[in-house]
Amino acid sequence: MHDVVIIGAGPAGLGVASTLRRLGVAATVVDRHGVGASFLRWPPDMRLITPSFTGNQFGLVDLNAITPDTSPALSLTEEHPTGAQYAAYLDMVARLDEIEVRTGIEVTDVVPRDDGHLTVEVADGGDLIARNVVWAAGEAQYPRHTGFPGAEHGIPTVNITSWGEHPGDDAVIIGGYESGIDAAANLIARGKRVTVIDPDAPWDVIDADPSRILSPYTQGRLRAADDTDRLELIGGVSVDAVTAAGDGWFVTTSDGEAHPTDGPPLLAIGFEGSLSIIRDRFKFDEHGRVELFEENDGSTVVPGLYLAGPALAHREAIFCFIYKFRQRFAIVARDIGERLEVDTEPLEELREHRFFLDDLSCCNDDCLC
Amino acid sequence: MHDVVIIGAGPAGLGVASTLRRLGVAATVVDRHGVGASFLRWPPDMRLITPSFTGNQFGLVDLNAITPDTSPALSLTEEHPTGAQYAAYLDMVARLDEIEVRTGIEVTDVVPRDDGHLTVEVADGGDLIARNVVWAAGEAQYPRHTGFPGAEHGIPTVNITSWGEHPGDDAVIIGGYESGIDAAANLIARGKRVTVIDPDAPWDVIDADPSRILSPYTQGRLRAADDTDRLELIGGVSVDAVTAAGDGWFVTTSDGEAHPTDGPPLLAIGFEGSLSIIRDRFKFDEHGRVELFEENDGSTVVPGLYLAGPALAHREAIFCFIYKFRQRFAIVARDIGERLEVDTEPLEELREHRFFLDDLSCCNDDCLC
Repeated sequence: MHDVVIIGAGPAGLGVASTLRRLGVAATVVDRHGVGASFLRWPPDMRLITPSFTGNQFGLVDLNAITPDTSPALSLTEEHPTGAQYAAYLDMVARLDEIEVRTGIEVTDVVPRDDGHLTVEVADGGDLIARNVVWAAGEAQYPRHTGFPGAEHGIPTVNITSWGEHPGDDAVIIGGYESGIDAAANLIARGKRVTVIDPDAPWDVIDADPSRILSPYTQGRLRAADDTDRLELIGGVSVDAVTAAGDGWFVTTSDGEAHPTDGPPLLAIGFEGSLSIIRDRFKFDEHGRVELFEENDGSTVVPGLYLAGPALAHREAIFCFIYKFRQRFAIVARDIGERLEVDTEPLEELREHRFFLDDLSCCNDDCLC
Repeated sequence: MHDVVIIGAGPAGLGVASTLRRLGVAATVVDRHGVGASFLRWPPDMRLITPSFTGNQFGLVDLNAITPDTSPALSLTEEHPTGAQYAAYLDMVARLDEIEVRTGIEVTDVVPRDDGHLTVEVADGGDLIARNVVWAAGEAQYPRHTGFPGAEHGIPTVNITSWGEHPGDDAVIIGGYESGIDAAANLIARGKRVTVIDPDAPWDVIDADPSRILSPYTQGRLRAADDTDRLELIGGVSVDAVTAAGDGWFVTTSDGEAHPTDGPPLLAIGFEGSLSIIRDRFKFDEHGRVELFEENDGSTVVPGLYLAGPALAHREAIFCFIYKFRQRFAIVARDIGERLEVDTEPLEELREHRFFLDDLSCCNDDCLC
């Protein structure tokens, strides 16, 4: 019997484990692969879009840190770590905080038991029984590959391992948020012509919430790409279909235009998310957003099951970046601590580091300029 | 009679003025030139080394913001603003907060009067009399040009307006901290060979305090420059002299080596600072560091005279970046508020945004990794 099993050895899973350790609660972290595995699969050119900086000493914790006393900027001496670098940082935190990580464990379901505990079902057997389970398996493993006829011709940008080997002199990218523009910048840097199509034209959006706009890093790269005159941004239209055409493809859009491309279209249209694995264990609203108890980030279906990571959302607040969802680690840890009847007072010091956000009113503030 | 005169319309001066406005105290900001004038003089390639990011909504205020409700990242859509961009941000804050800025006023001294007030002496006449004076005239206007024989042959890197026009195929840079490496990166990007000399070898220093190490941004640029094999970093030796030699110069170092260069040596050896203008109004310790009352950042020589900006230091804490010294705006504002007998309670809300640091113990913390 485990007090806590955490699914996923990424920033969310290790962050919650580290936070629980402050309460003397040892969690068992399980992962299909290993620590930071999704980051290790990133294309070599891909980097964290949120900048890392060593502001910890002045209470301004590195935006990509998962504990208040560490800083990827300091340990990696990089402002925008690559996936491999960030995985190394996560591994360091796991070792530093002596977090138990079991790898090669593929969880297929989390099932409530009659005795009030939970069974973590594992693909090859060896199920785990736990009082509490935290789902922290991340979002980026399952890129969306659907939504219009011919979507199957497309290649998700996160699956590109080498931009230089993408065929053809041009590229059409469907989706213009962070990963679409990242792909565009990388392909333009290799001399290609690039067309990006997105009905929402994210490159034109201005908002104080960085989850709704392109990051400053991405905006800078976008401008540099745009300066080459080899980038075309098409907003306000959606993709109707992708059709194979001789030795290339056509991407037809809702305005009746057909955009020819000699390489397969690239998809940057989001992710299904790992939650699909245990979809029945959560409720979802009409927008497909997962419903959670706001006071503890717990499932409204299965008691003792919590969510941590980028799929988190409450009211108007989206927690899709590390510096956002890390603020809810202590919310989960507090509830688990109370269920295990341990003193949760040690979590209080996390507030001053902005690692303990239980008043969501802040997140509706806007910047003046 | 002015309640408060602030010398300098840069981030420190405008930041203090904005903070005082929370107390209903209207300060008069004077500047030799105009808002953000030193930033407007930066070389076009030069950028803020601390990254800007729109974390305000989650309490993680943009590191380069001077008020908690603004973000240069948001208004400039830049992670590393140029000097001109940052000056535009400062100008926006000044307008937004309706700060009175008088330009073209060159202050030559601040003199205590018999009645307890202060005379701000102005070069062309029109002295100002004030109850309180904040010296916020900055540091970077007076690059150091001394320290070894032949230093006068050198050109401070901040005075370079176009890296492309620097003569010769090579360059020797004296000083390897942020501005020295910035110069190296810019010259290497233009195909030159570059030698950087610094006895402290800052490129090898690892420390949790970003004031003691190269920023992640600079470290990344340094690595890119180093990868060209056109960069030589020489640590552990100091410069003995610069001598003219035919159509070039020699930089001789303490190990007896002579480094020839066809362009004039570049100096990145720090600044005299604007405090030299009113040197007698402050006390300095044996290391040349300005002495201030820790509880109010006031001069230990002239009551009612305060210092704000990058020259600030207390105990082990160096406040030389915007995100550091902005934490002391409220310290100065509180003391001025008390002297003017206004309620200083409105400053309290600045604490949660890390804009009100009166407990310096935090700054001795180290990062674990």
